[in-house]
Amino acid sequence: MENFSEWFHNVLEEAEILDSRYPIKGMSVWLPKGFKLRKYITEELRKLLDEEHDETLFPLLVPENELAKEGIHVKGFEEEVYWVTHGGSKELNEKLAIRPTSETAIYPMFALWIRSHIDLPIKLYQVVNTFRYETKHTRPLIRVREITTFAEAHTVHVTKEEAEEQVKTGIKIYSELFDKLAIPYIVSKRPSWDKFPGADYTMAFDTFFPDGKTLQIGTVHNLGQTFAKTFDIKYETTESTHELPYQTCYGLSDRVIASVIATHGDEKGLVLPAIVAPVQVTIIPIIFKDGQEEVLSKVEEIEKLIKDNGFRVNVDNRDIRPGKKFYEAELNGTPLRIEIGPRDLKENKIVLTRRDTLEKINVSLEDDLIDIINDLFEDMTKTMKNKAWKRLNGNVISVETLLESKKTIENGQIASIKWCGEDSCGEDIEEETGLDILGTQEKTSGKCIYCGKDAKYNALIAKTY
Amino acid sequence: MENFSEWFHNVLEEAEILDSRYPIKGMSVWLPKGFKLRKYITEELRKLLDEEHDETLFPLLVPENELAKEGIHVKGFEEEVYWVTHGGSKELNEKLAIRPTSETAIYPMFALWIRSHIDLPIKLYQVVNTFRYETKHTRPLIRVREITTFAEAHTVHVTKEEAEEQVKTGIKIYSELFDKLAIPYIVSKRPSWDKFPGADYTMAFDTFFPDGKTLQIGTVHNLGQTFAKTFDIKYETTESTHELPYQTCYGLSDRVIASVIATHGDEKGLVLPAIVAPVQVTIIPIIFKDGQEEVLSKVEEIEKLIKDNGFRVNVDNRDIRPGKKFYEAELNGTPLRIEIGPRDLKENKIVLTRRDTLEKINVSLEDDLIDIINDLFEDMTKTMKNKAWKRLNGNVISVETLLESKKTIENGQIASIKWCGEDSCGEDIEEETGLDILGTQEKTSGKCIYCGKDAKYNALIAKTY
Repeated sequence: MENFSEWFHNVLEEAEILDSRYPIKGMSVWLPKGFKLRKYITEELRKLLDEEHDETLFPLLVPENELAKEGIHVKGFEEEVYWVTHGGSKELNEKLAIRPTSETAIYPMFALWIRSHIDLPIKLYQVVNTFRYETKHTRPLIRVREITTFAEAHTVHVTKEEAEEQVKTGIKIYSELFDKLAIPYIVSKRPSWDKFPGADYTMAFDTFFPDGKTLQIGTVHNLGQTFAKTFDIKYETTESTHELPYQTCYGLSDRVIASVIATHGDEKGLVLPAIVAPVQVTIIPIIFKDGQEEVLSKVEEIEKLIKDNGFRVNVDNRDIRPGKKFYEAELNGTPLRIEIGPRDLKENKIVLTRRDTLEKINVSLEDDLIDIINDLFEDMTKTMKNKAWKRLNGNVISVETLLESKKTIENGQIASIKWCGEDSCGEDIEEETGLDILGTQEKTSGKCIYCGKDAKYNALIAKTY
Repeated sequence: MENFSEWFHNVLEEAEILDSRYPIKGMSVWLPKGFKLRKYITEELRKLLDEEHDETLFPLLVPENELAKEGIHVKGFEEEVYWVTHGGSKELNEKLAIRPTSETAIYPMFALWIRSHIDLPIKLYQVVNTFRYETKHTRPLIRVREITTFAEAHTVHVTKEEAEEQVKTGIKIYSELFDKLAIPYIVSKRPSWDKFPGADYTMAFDTFFPDGKTLQIGTVHNLGQTFAKTFDIKYETTESTHELPYQTCYGLSDRVIASVIATHGDEKGLVLPAIVAPVQVTIIPIIFKDGQEEVLSKVEEIEKLIKDNGFRVNVDNRDIRPGKKFYEAELNGTPLRIEIGPRDLKENKIVLTRRDTLEKINVSLEDDLIDIINDLFEDMTKTMKNKAWKRLNGNVISVETLLESKKTIENGQIASIKWCGEDSCGEDIEEETGLDILGTQEKTSGKCIYCGKDAKYNALIAKTY
């Protein structure tokens, strides 16, 4: 991809995912095809979360005094909050914030709900729109003012250990989702100056975009007791004392959808994992005068077979050239295209084309088509996943000096360094390079790449979105 | 129900549907059980709409100049709009309205999308939250400031006739939904002073609440060409002229959920149609020391059988008295309760209790339980529907004088009158009675109940929410 930014912009428009001509910058319209992609991705997430969370829905607006309660938290968001000040022509008694995230909407309710240790743990989530008054350059799905798909989970626990465990569970759930979507990721612990405002620590998922930048696509926060203290959330123990519980929260956004598009797409358009493709199989009848009836009846038979087996299938029987149909199926990222024509039928076969490799597969009408489709979908996701992981892994380069790390990043790669872990040193590194320390991974020994003190962690430096 | 208002408030709280203690009046939190009810109701609506509409998603915020474009429309909403004036500490260049409804968000995009007659018809919908700065007394699900579930469809057509036809389709879709939910309804044409701001005319669905008031639960608007003119939506005809298309829109809200609760509930709590019940069957093991293993293995077997047949089933094996379990299952409106105990098993049977009538049914273990459940669900919905329609129909009273109509309404009923159809006469009727003309139904002859001129329509007068 020559110019990723341009490609991304074009594919959203041409594949009819989003219309970003909406008259407010940073807010877009989900078009029917895009909406379906978003729906299927969200459904996969819900399946994973529903196993141990309850879905709920909290109001969009937050009273100013609730938002202001947690000082560190509000400081992190204050320049990004949209404020509602009027109802009709009347000025409101109290300003209302449009949620930038929902801690301050949810935790006052936790204080009402939690009385005793038997009320815990609480594990809930909601999928909502949130808002950030972005002053930077916006980009659809990546840096927006209305995050249309913000899936945020919030949990409350009796012990610190349970909260730690829940952080691991959050990481596991998101890993499973990204695996299903064939999106590769790096998990790291954000440096302290980059953690979620108010959290004890933040674990983050970053993926690697074709332009050499990383994109944060999910975060899991251990909130400790900070918010419990602020919002006066307490539970009664078996010994009748009152204690502060431990909290976690974790979230994903539209960026997951951006990553599915950016990771797998090619110069022909979208390439989608079958699990989330709006149309999984498109059947294209090849019509000549001869054998037309036979073709159409076979098309109908095969459509029914595929549909009855639970796949999303369509038949493209528009009166346009097959070439245009192939073009559109490729643009839309439809995983499998089936051509059915009179010559193939005479040879007792149909032709499948897989979107990822564009490889053509002749399938005999005697074979079990459903088995073949299932195998192909599995193989395609595996192939897409391997390719994407290979690209990510091949671009994480261990370096020994700051100069090397700058070169690595200029080269569109990610640098892995040894780091002392000190805030002041890290901030110096970021200032000197103009790059971001993504976070720390496993512990290490040796010397810090910058200050020369004993290294504590391997850390990653990248150019980030 | 002695006091409907109190009952409604209590059942929302006790059955854990909503928590209305959120710190902004008129905005509530959907609790897990309530969220599921909302989800299943919305899913039924989506199934109906998806047959001929595409689902989309438009931004929440609308620039002031777009909202202001259609004068009549904005006048209808101007005192109810929440305004966003600041991003962070910065005043915005242009105020942003939080959508009270989405015509002004959607129609500027229609102007971009529609070029030619081949782009029409457009039929789309979205399910979103909308906001009204209510100054009247709020009530959860009925009169709120955040409408969390606003399902709005918008269509565009080449001809006036197609738009008329679409109004009928909208009415048909909503009727089907209400039938599935066993909610009775009256369809009428709103008087002109009560139509949707900017519409040519408004068809409305009202249901009848246990307190004798009607509640508007759905509206279908024929917008004519008004908005097309305002938003400069034009299409090129086959003759290369440019014409204004015809539009319709129709919407439902949280009030549908309120109606399911209010229509069917009784003094024991919710009574839910199986199609939308979060749990459709609850199994309660009756445990004694003797025969415990046999009971538990039968419970497991029956749970699996019911689940495998696609029903939402749970087993209540908490260590509490069965009486408390019965109480909760009734409160939650679970359509079917199955008790399995050692004495029944000895007699080779289990005991089913249907929620609507609380009737107990002995079912032999030799019988086909799934057939029985399917039949019961069907019969329950039918019974609930008949009962509800009977109550509605029995409370529409034809009257000859205004005094009679006042008495009818004081009596908690709906008055059907003959009316001339003149705005000035209708407004006099409303002023004199302090009641609302719901709308007009079929044409009639005779004399207007108020002014004595020739009557044009049968019209309904009611006390409305």
